[in-house]
Amino acid sequence: MPRHKSEDDITAEVLERFAQTPQPRLREIMLSLIRHLHAFVKEVNLTEAEWFQAIAILTETGRLWCSDKRQEFILFSDTLGVSMVVDLLNHRKPEGATESTVFGPFHRLGAPEMPAGGNIADRDTTGVPTLVGGRVLDLDGRPIAGALLDVWQAQSNGLYDSQDAQVEGMHMRGRFRTDAEGRYLVRTVRPVHYPIPADGPVGRMLRATGRHPWRPAHIHFVVSAEGYEPVTTHIFDRADDYLNSDAVFAVKESLICDFVRHDAADDAEAARLGIAPPFYTVRFDFRLKKAAKAGASVLEAQQRLAALGTQAAQ
Amino acid sequence: MPRHKSEDDITAEVLERFAQTPQPRLREIMLSLIRHLHAFVKEVNLTEAEWFQAIAILTETGRLWCSDKRQEFILFSDTLGVSMVVDLLNHRKPEGATESTVFGPFHRLGAPEMPAGGNIADRDTTGVPTLVGGRVLDLDGRPIAGALLDVWQAQSNGLYDSQDAQVEGMHMRGRFRTDAEGRYLVRTVRPVHYPIPADGPVGRMLRATGRHPWRPAHIHFVVSAEGYEPVTTHIFDRADDYLNSDAVFAVKESLICDFVRHDAADDAEAARLGIAPPFYTVRFDFRLKKAAKAGASVLEAQQRLAALGTQAAQ
Repeated sequence: MPRHKSEDDITAEVLERFAQTPQPRLREIMLSLIRHLHAFVKEVNLTEAEWFQAIAILTETGRLWCSDKRQEFILFSDTLGVSMVVDLLNHRKPEGATESTVFGPFHRLGAPEMPAGGNIADRDTTGVPTLVGGRVLDLDGRPIAGALLDVWQAQSNGLYDSQDAQVEGMHMRGRFRTDAEGRYLVRTVRPVHYPIPADGPVGRMLRATGRHPWRPAHIHFVVSAEGYEPVTTHIFDRADDYLNSDAVFAVKESLICDFVRHDAADDAEAARLGIAPPFYTVRFDFRLKKAAKAGASVLEAQQRLAALGTQAAQ
Repeated sequence: MPRHKSEDDITAEVLERFAQTPQPRLREIMLSLIRHLHAFVKEVNLTEAEWFQAIAILTETGRLWCSDKRQEFILFSDTLGVSMVVDLLNHRKPEGATESTVFGPFHRLGAPEMPAGGNIADRDTTGVPTLVGGRVLDLDGRPIAGALLDVWQAQSNGLYDSQDAQVEGMHMRGRFRTDAEGRYLVRTVRPVHYPIPADGPVGRMLRATGRHPWRPAHIHFVVSAEGYEPVTTHIFDRADDYLNSDAVFAVKESLICDFVRHDAADDAEAARLGIAPPFYTVRFDFRLKKAAKAGASVLEAQQRLAALGTQAAQ
């Protein structure tokens, strides 16, 4: 043991201790964590006051801002861009497959099953009617019949149903199936941009770093089908002001859609559903890649959703 | 925006966003944090399940294991070696000055003032009597009169007074002053090794990584004097079994002392204090460096202690 330990001596000693971890995967994670955590502290020459502030923020985040209604650590992961990196590492898509993006904290299990053209926004009185339609296809462009689309969206007041004390039960959520030609059709209202919850430590971080809390307007989808890998994604509105500065970094070029405005009754599906102008139509085709193990993917998607719901509610 | 974002595209986008942080120091910290956090996630190819586990551990740590009696995030910092790196970065000592080590969570403000030879262990019935003495010196070896030594130690049952429901008020704590020759003398019992609290997430981490929770036997000191930089440190017992595997990595060679056993009444100070053999004596001289701003250091030490106490109790 040297007379004066250097900061690198300390790191070497800690790495040596963790190198004895029996389980190889945990050992790999702990050694990498130690290397990066120590390198960060040394690189910025962290003061004791800053270290105390970090301890205090972590403590406050866990004690006061994590409940069955709120998950501030996930919000930190989202706003620091970590969630999108994890998403990408776990869902690498071949060229042509629909890209994934963050799941977010607002999915709920058991959204109502709806027929094609079913209205998920039947209690939203201020949004402009919008029809989202298209097909679910495989990577060769062949339609996938019976694919499931789990859809959810914020209300026109910027709140999800679960955030809005005025709303009973589920609203702006539905599950749709594709027909024999792989077609789906969702009736909703045009989505709005909305702020992520900014009254806690993440909000303070955003303000201190000169960032806004807004997410560009989007609609959430989880699309799954027997024999295919499910995809968790959004579609975004190309006209939105926050497309280039999403607070959670979830925008991908391939997920941006044109919301086409209609000022005349010039759309057959809208006319059939009795939608009067003005209204919007959006076309988006989802392309799924074959699952490695055929047959398991729908179940996996359901389990993944269930696991996400449970974890977020802890 | 590229059609497919890579994981490095995401990191670049996040860094660009944080580069707009107005305050330079916060900007420096956030950019370094993002670089290392993202690099860690990519290096280990973190799975979604592992990400969820990390979120769950952070949440549990804050919600269930941080209170006015327990600070599990500090315990994580200690057991991951981060606290010792921060300590070193903030207290670089010139050759000859007493090295610092972790403050720990068990200091209490307002320990009783005691005369030279005062017994901090008067209610400890099982420990072997021990006299710790020496001098407080400057870097030229000149004695510092009137230096303050704030001393605390675990009881022989391995618990600090604040952890032990059987103990009322303060025990194993005292504040001593040096005499005109810089001498101090503390009567106590020989310290024991003890486990850090291992019933929470840190305990699970130690078990999973094949580590034990023990700290080698030690006595805590904060030594301060007008015009000198205070030092927060321990002295360690060279005979301890856990000297090479301290759970919080706090041991430094220069802080290890010989606890000399006496089986005869062969020590003048012990005889004067009425201590019967067997007993131990330890000699340790503290060497303080001059404060950059003369006169401020005692006050700074007090404020630092107060801040530490308050923060740890949050």
